[in-house]
Order: sequence, then structure tokens, then C-alpha cells
Amino acid sequence: MASTTFTLHYGSMIINESISPGKNLLELIHSLPSVNIDAPCGGKGTCGKCRVRIIEGEASPVSDAEKKFLSAADIKKGIRLACKTLPEGSVTVVLEDSMHNAKIMESGGLPYTGRLNPLLKKKVMNLPPASLEDQRSLETRLLQALPEGSVLDHRIRLKLAELQQKEQYEMTLSFCDTTITNLTPGSDMTPSYALAVDIGTTTVVAYLVNLSTGQMMGTASGLNTQKSFGADVISRIDYIGDDKEKLSQLQQRICSQIEELASKTLKAAGLNEEDLMAVFAAGNTTMMHILQGLSPQTIARAPFIPVSTEAMILKPSEIASQLPDHVRFVLLPSLSGYIGADIVAGILSTEIAESEDLCLLVDIGTNGEIAMGNKDSLTSCSTAAGPAFEGANIQCGVGGIPGAISSFRSDGNSFSFETIDDKPVSGICGSGIIDLTAYLLKAGLVDFTGRFQDESDWRNNPPASKDSLINKDGEIRFVWENKEDSLYFTQKDLREVQLAKGSIGAGIATLVKESGHSLDDIKKVYLAGGFGSYIDHQSALAIGLLPQELQGRIHCVGNSCGAGVIRCALNRDEMEKTKMILNKTKYIELSSNKGFQEEYMLNMYFPEYD
Amino acid sequence: MASTTFTLHYGSMIINESISPGKNLLELIHSLPSVNIDAPCGGKGTCGKCRVRIIEGEASPVSDAEKKFLSAADIKKGIRLACKTLPEGSVTVVLEDSMHNAKIMESGGLPYTGRLNPLLKKKVMNLPPASLEDQRSLETRLLQALPEGSVLDHRIRLKLAELQQKEQYEMTLSFCDTTITNLTPGSDMTPSYALAVDIGTTTVVAYLVNLSTGQMMGTASGLNTQKSFGADVISRIDYIGDDKEKLSQLQQRICSQIEELASKTLKAAGLNEEDLMAVFAAGNTTMMHILQGLSPQTIARAPFIPVSTEAMILKPSEIASQLPDHVRFVLLPSLSGYIGADIVAGILSTEIAESEDLCLLVDIGTNGEIAMGNKDSLTSCSTAAGPAFEGANIQCGVGGIPGAISSFRSDGNSFSFETIDDKPVSGICGSGIIDLTAYLLKAGLVDFTGRFQDESDWRNNPPASKDSLINKDGEIRFVWENKEDSLYFTQKDLREVQLAKGSIGAGIATLVKESGHSLDDIKKVYLAGGFGSYIDHQSALAIGLLPQELQGRIHCVGNSCGAGVIRCALNRDEMEKTKMILNKTKYIELSSNKGFQEEYMLNMYFPEYD
Repeated sequence: MASTTFTLHYGSMIINESISPGKNLLELIHSLPSVNIDAPCGGKGTCGKCRVRIIEGEASPVSDAEKKFLSAADIKKGIRLACKTLPEGSVTVVLEDSMHNAKIMESGGLPYTGRLNPLLKKKVMNLPPASLEDQRSLETRLLQALPEGSVLDHRIRLKLAELQQKEQYEMTLSFCDTTITNLTPGSDMTPSYALAVDIGTTTVVAYLVNLSTGQMMGTASGLNTQKSFGADVISRIDYIGDDKEKLSQLQQRICSQIEELASKTLKAAGLNEEDLMAVFAAGNTTMMHILQGLSPQTIARAPFIPVSTEAMILKPSEIASQLPDHVRFVLLPSLSGYIGADIVAGILSTEIAESEDLCLLVDIGTNGEIAMGNKDSLTSCSTAAGPAFEGANIQCGVGGIPGAISSFRSDGNSFSFETIDDKPVSGICGSGIIDLTAYLLKAGLVDFTGRFQDESDWRNNPPASKDSLINKDGEIRFVWENKEDSLYFTQKDLREVQLAKGSIGAGIATLVKESGHSLDDIKKVYLAGGFGSYIDHQSALAIGLLPQELQGRIHCVGNSCGAGVIRCALNRDEMEKTKMILNKTKYIELSSNKGFQEEYMLNMYFPEYD
Repeated sequence: MASTTFTLHYGSMIINESISPGKNLLELIHSLPSVNIDAPCGGKGTCGKCRVRIIEGEASPVSDAEKKFLSAADIKKGIRLACKTLPEGSVTVVLEDSMHNAKIMESGGLPYTGRLNPLLKKKVMNLPPASLEDQRSLETRLLQALPEGSVLDHRIRLKLAELQQKEQYEMTLSFCDTTITNLTPGSDMTPSYALAVDIGTTTVVAYLVNLSTGQMMGTASGLNTQKSFGADVISRIDYIGDDKEKLSQLQQRICSQIEELASKTLKAAGLNEEDLMAVFAAGNTTMMHILQGLSPQTIARAPFIPVSTEAMILKPSEIASQLPDHVRFVLLPSLSGYIGADIVAGILSTEIAESEDLCLLVDIGTNGEIAMGNKDSLTSCSTAAGPAFEGANIQCGVGGIPGAISSFRSDGNSFSFETIDDKPVSGICGSGIIDLTAYLLKAGLVDFTGRFQDESDWRNNPPASKDSLINKDGEIRFVWENKEDSLYFTQKDLREVQLAKGSIGAGIATLVKESGHSLDDIKKVYLAGGFGSYIDHQSALAIGLLPQELQGRIHCVGNSCGAGVIRCALNRDEMEKTKMILNKTKYIELSSNKGFQEEYMLNMYFPEYD
């Protein structure tokens, strides 16, 4: 049998691979390390996002699963769902590279203006030359000139041997705490740099900072390249299962992505890898596990136990990173399986754990992570909001890509919307979904239980012409711009919103109750994350995503995780504070919390409007 | 041109290699990792020891350098010096495997009867299972159950991830101090073992000890497989030069040899590599450098500065050892370039640094290392004795191999000798050389200046018939058994003995003087090392190798280095004591010591006999 080839057109690239029998197109695409495909469900055929176009060759017949997501026109054009399509012989496939265009918030949250005291430092040593009167070994000479407890690893000792041969006694040492991470001959007091990385499930953002001045040198970001293995942590954990190869595959993805972001920011600043001393990183507990090559499997099943939540300093070789040996990965600690280092970093940068006032931090993603407290104590919880606010499980939903409807405005009869970058509409993203829901509620098209107006009501209160409720095959949906096949919002979509907002609201209510406070006690609400920054506060209050009592106290803090990681890079005391945060913070497991279930039911309802 | 082949018959092995052009036979043999050839001068053509026999093929003509060492009969048989012979086309060569038969003292010096408190320990942990009420990560759970400061390296964390997946909370940890070196599921309190290794320039001896009981499980030894690269440290340093490949070649030799000794002793005790927790090692400073892959080059030139003399714990991967990852190499510290970890170990096992009495430790090899002192302070020095006492540079000299004459006895007219293992005479080794010198002095055949009796004296005092002075081509030599071509001792040989004994004697005298003591103050003299154990004390005193004032106080302590290393393996406090020894011990550099030069001249003379 002649060998069969899989050819992929991806952006400007054309990639050829021989086909392993039995693999579907998604699996074939997954095997290409430089290609990213959007597959939020991780290949289960339930999200309909992994669309590809076959332009040559044959494949398995279009399945029923695909027909749910593909129109007749799609099928005619050769569009298929990659996860449901088996090639039959050689095939050539086109994949639109939409993932590189996502709008990612790179702003580093609340700025850090504290003192510089980085964990990683350089030091020039000029040792007295050896003589017959002073025959101490070079290593002894060095150790005796350094603070007690300084540690040389063997790689540094080999460099010392080279200096000894040249009888070179001036050297520049790099330190990570008390460990010498690099040694170069002569004096080199050029600044050194760290990359602060926020590893989101969806997006990865990196900030290059100058450790000598605290200056921000540049930022870079991209959609998490693990995204093609599932949109949320559970899908990725499912994908990995107990397969070490797959864990290593995802680990390599994030390591390569960090290398790329490092290379990009360094290059833009006129620097190179030798100038980079460290990568500081935080992400949710699953992202931290994958980065470290630790199986995240038990995070996904009760009692949700991680392998590690400790702060950690690792060498590139320990996590399969290709960065130079002298670089150190400094990982922030997590609190539990669902309150990760990203939230610890967020608590750090918002200074909640040092605040006199009671504060609330809400980070909405596929999980809604919530922390509340002040300098005395904190409580935290994590609720499974689902991916509705990220545009997944919403029929016309998309992520924050150009053309996504990000806001709706309605002023009586006029109804308008904006898309990201003013591009032609590609769908509706999270902030748009919240605005739209608020509009539907206020306009009375949906009642507080989340039910669309019944057709029988329309005669009394006819929908606006362009933007109106229709009955499509027995299902009530809201359609706008008269585009009933591309711009609509269904009863099922609305239910997804209810589940998402209900879980966030219930989480907040549970924390308030468990800590013995009332909503009125909360002086500041920090909305974290890219999504938190884009949503309209009024709409969030209108749909009850946030309790209406909190009106006027809401602050968007942008990427509070990134800001916390930057703090740790610039000041080791901030890294120390993470321990204090862990000690102070109580984690409330909602799955076994009776009050939460009740709150969840209540919070699924919308506020009432007449 | 057809490829040419080098064929080597070595013991029962026949090895074929294609010939790299321009390489002499010694270099070709060096490229075979499993072959050992005796080449004390390291290939300079000055020792005449790297004899091989060509049985097929052609080679470069016999050089003048070779003619100094080879008889006409040798040349006729095809005997050549490997270092001076270039193959011309394919050749087949026989190399007698004499190195494997050396008699090596394996006795572990003064036995250790102190308490057991090994640096490496096992511990079984049974952690409380996780629950929704206790969601701490497995790592946190473990760290909180361990003493503060316990360190997990990343490899152990990966094992922890496997346990977490199985929800296995019972585990056995191995510790090296506070670092976890191994983790196995379940409870395993079988004993663990350490290999204590004495890395001599000439011989390597290993002792397998049970860390739980202190029991000696077995010993194994062999000639140092680096020996074919030079008999003494200077030749090996010369061989290495600044070539990293050659350094790595010698490092791999010693690592492989340690692996072999480990495997041999473990197998004999019914154990395997998994049971081995650590290799404790000491040797001279150059051997320690080579083991660690640190260039020893600057030890060989003034001011004789080593790269490292520190105690060190290394992973197998750091020194290219193939032992399992969990094994730790624990290296004893050295004092200076020429007072190595072997002497530190010797000081430890003889307990000099804790003694009320003034003690003297003398370790005679190619260097004579001498330490003197008591619990208050110690002084030490190293003298270049040269390899005479190891049989090198002595025309009929051999190492301590079977058939080597190891002792002479003379009782008036009767003159007898013994060979090692009663084998047919193969030459004369160090202890025999000392006995013979003492005989020659006492018999008046040599005067106190080291000059053989002149032919003119023979008429008055005719030499004994079988064992007598002869004049061979104008050189006076002592011949015994009438074998004037195979059993003789020349004026030049005697001069080598004078240089060697002079340097040791001068070293002792200098230490005594520098420390403000007199010879009478010395209460105990410890003769260390295999050689020290085999020499006859009376002969050593007779030739002035040791001052006659020390008569009656001499103790042979066998392998005092090995005994010290064993102590460190069994009790971490002993390892700590090495620091105390370093702090207490002053090193006297003899090359810049004016008193030493004078003492050296004086000590070159022999005691006078009439």
C-alpha cells in the first residue's frame, strides 16, 4: 500500500506529514507542534469549533454529529469537523489560523511601585589571586568570599575550573537566592531581566521586566497553544488521562510558548536569551501541574487533590524547556486544586491580604474564582461557571477575536452593537453576551426565570422589526439584524448564561455567609482578568452576575495575576508574601457545601424588572 | 586504500578496531575502554613498561628509545614499547594482562566501632489520606509531615505524582541529609548500603557497608584503570593537558571502575544496584578532580592551586556515572593540591586530630604525604618521593604483583628472599627495595653516601658468590642468584631510593621543626597505605626512611583512607569531623620552604654502619 500523506495549509505554511492509520484530522493536527486549532471540547464532537476545509482527497462520510454544526452550504464547501473526520487516503486540508488574532489583555493590572529587591541578582567578585602563601582552592576562595550558605551547582564548578586554568579571578555571578545560577569571566554589570508569565487556560501573557530598574521592557501574548486539546482545564485533564506522552506533549506546548514569548519580548527590547535570568510564572493549579510535568488527573475527581501546590524553583532541564541552563523558573504557589497561583498572584497585586477594608476579588473564566477578606483573614472558593462567558456552548458564541460583538447598547428603541476592532461580525463574545442578556431582561423579552416571552405574548407586545424574537423550528430565539442563521441567541444559550452567572453569584453569597460578613461590609470589588475588564458593570449588576448591593464599588484590575507575578519578579518579599496569603486563606470546597447548592438555585434567577 | 585493522589479544579477549592513522600502539590501546596497560610515564618512552608483542603485521622500526629497554632477545620475539611503535598496515598485538593480578591491600585500616548515624537513611511515611475536608496537595502533605527544610528534587516530585494518581499514601523515602533521593511506594525497610571507595593513584579499593548495621558486606579492588595514562598524578595531569575529551576519558575510567566494584561487591552480597544508596569516596586531590570532571591542571604548576577541595554531594548524572539516579556520591574534602581527601580520611581514622599524644601519619606513595599533630593542631606536607617505592624507575622494579620480591632476609652469610604468592620472580617491589637497600648498607656494600663499593675494595672483601657486586659495562651493580641480566640493582636505582627516602625524611624533619616539637615528642607513628603495611620497620629505620628515634612507636594502619571513608559512610558526625580537621591543619608548602631544601640534602644520606 502506497504511503498516504496529510497536507495542511495553515496561514502561509504548507505542512506535509505521512498519515498514521486510524487517526482523525484533529489528532493529525495535534501531532504538529506549531499548529493551533480551536477545539474547546477537546475532540468530543460537542462544540463544533474544530472546522477545517478539505480541498483534496477523500474522507469518511459526514457524520450525524457534524450535521448538528454544519450547514448544507458548509458541507458543500468541504467544511468538516476535524475530530469527526477520518482521512481515506491522502488529503489536503485548510485550517484558518484564527487563534493568533485573539484580543488579549496585556495590561499588567495594578502597577507595582514598591521597592526593588529581586530574588535574582548579579554580583561581580574579584578574588585575591592565589600564591604559595594562599593555596586555597578557587572554590574555597569563592565560598569564603560569599555569604554563608551560598550554593554552587556542579555546572558552575565546571565553569570555575575553566577560570582556574586561566588564573582569572574576576567573575560575574548570577544568584537565585543563595544559589549561583551562572558564572561568567570578568565584570558584567549589564542589567538582567525576568519574564513574568500569566499562564491562563485560554491565553498566555508575558511581561519582560528589567530586574535592575523595575522597568517594563515589553509584553507579548498568545492564545494558550494547549487550547487545541480542550478549552477548559477539565477537557485537558481528560485529554491527558494517564498517558505520560500526552502530558509531556502539553508540557512541551507551554514550554515552547514561553520560549517564544521570551524570544519575542527580548528581541523587541534588543536583548537575547543570555540576558534572561528567570521566568516567573503563575496560572491555575492545572496549568502549573502541566508546566511541571506533574499529572493533574486527581484535580479533576473528588476530593480534587493536586500533586503539588508549593512555590518552586526549577531548572529548564527539569521541565523540558529549551531556555539556557542558567535561567530559573520560579513558580508561585497555589492554594488548592481550584484556587491556583494565578489567584494567589491576584490577591497579592490587589493587596487584599494587607487591606484594612473587606475586599472581594472575582476572576471570571470557565471557573469563577472568588476570594474575599482583608489583612486578618481570607476565604476563597471556585465555582464551575462553564465556558459560556468565553463564548463556548453559546451557538453564535466566539472568544474575544476581531469581529466578536463585545457590547450592545439599547436606548429605548435604538439597538446598536460594537465588534472588536470594528471588524465584520464573527459572533458574540462574553461581554456582549452579558450586555445582550441585560437588554433582553430590561426589554421584558425574558422574564426573571430566564424564559423567553411566549409567542402568545408577541401580539400584545410585538418585537422590534430588525431585532426580534422568532420561532425557529419550535425554539424561541432572539435574532438581530434579521440574520436568523448567524446572529441569534437561543433559550438554550440563555440557560448557559444562567448557569454561569448563578454559580458566580452563589459563590459570592457563600463566601459572604461563611465568613460571617454581609454584602454591605465589602468596600471594594476587584474584577480581574481580561474578561472582567471588558464587561459592562451595569450589565453585570443588571443580570445579577454581581449582587446589586456592590454597585459603585467595582474596580477593574486588568491582569491582576500578571501584576502579581511581576511583583514577585521584582521583589523577593512579594514572593514571601504568597506564603502569608496561603496561611491566611481558607478554601471552601463548594461541592460539599450545603449552603452553596441552595444559593445556586436562587442565583440562577435574574433580577426582576417590570 | 583498504582499511587497516588493529587486533589485540588481551587475556582471553580478542579485540578488533580499525586503525586511526598516526596513532601509536599505546594510543590505540588507550582507546579501548576495557583494556589496561601499565604505562607509568604516560607514553613518554621513559619507563619502558608498556611492552607488547607484535605477532602479525608490520610496524615502525625499533627506535633508539626502545633499545634502552629491550634486549636483542626481546626484539627478536617481537616485543616493542607500545608508545614508540607505529603500526604500518594491519597489526596483531599481544598484551599480557598483568594489571589484574596486583596484590592490593583491602584491609580497611583501623576498625570503626563508633555509633551508627549515617547521612543516608530510609524512612517510611504513612500520610493521612486526602478528603474534601483536607485537600492539601500530596507534596504539601508530605512536606508538613517531614522536618522543616526537607528538600524534594523534581525527579522525586514526578514520583509523587504517580503515587497521587494511585491514591497511595504510604511510601518509603531515602534521604541524603535533608534531601530526598528516592521514593518508592509502600513500606520498604530492607537495609540500605553504601560503597566506601579509596581512589588511589595506583589502586582503587571499595568496601560495601550495611548502613543499618554497620556490617562490612565485602570488598573489591583493582589497579586504577587510569594507570595506563601515567603512574603518578603528574603524568596523568600531563596526559590530560587542557583537553576536555581526555579529562572526560579519565573521568569515565574511574566512574566505570567504581560501577564495576559496586556491582562486584553487591553481587557477592546477593544485592543489586537498587540497594545502593551512596558512594563515599576519597583520594588524592587530583583523583578527586578527575572524578568530578574538574581540570587538575593547575595542581601541577606553582602555586599548585586546585579548583575544588570542598566536601561535595553529587548526583551520578553530574559526573557521568551510570549508577541509578537515586545514588549519591559523597566526596570527602581535601586540604590542598597535595594533601588530598585520602589523607584527611587517614587523619580521621587514626583519630590523630582527637588525640592527646603527638602523632605522625606517613603515607608513602609516589608522593609521601605526612601529617603530624594532636587534638590542638596539625601540620602536614607532601613530598615528591617519586615512584621508586612503587617499583618504577628501578630497572628490575615492579609493582606489588605476584612474583615480585617483597622481602630480603640476610643472616650473616645466608641471603634469602620471598616473592608475592611464592610465584617465580617477576622483579622487585617497594618493600623488597627497602630490605635490599638495608642489606647493602649493613653488609657494607654501599656506604652512607649511597656509593657502591669500588672494584678496588673487592680484593680485600670479596663479595659472596651468588649475590655479589659486579662491574657491568663500567657500572657497579648488585646481582643476586647470579642472574646478572634479570636480578640486579644498580647505582642509579640506589640513587632513586636516596631521592625517595630523602624527601620523606626531610618532610618529617620539616614538620617537626615547623611545629616546634622534637622527634621524641612523637608518641605514635602511623604507617598508612598498602605499601606502609608491607615494609619491614627495621629496614625502614635502617635506611633512614623513618628517623631511628621513632623505633618502637611504629604502627601499620593498613588502608587508613578506606577506614576513614567507611567511618564517614556510617556516621555523619565523622563527615563533619573532616571540617574540623581542615580547620585545624596547617599545610606547609615544601617547595618554598628553605629549611626543607637543607633537610633534603641531609636526608639523602643513609645512616652510617661500620
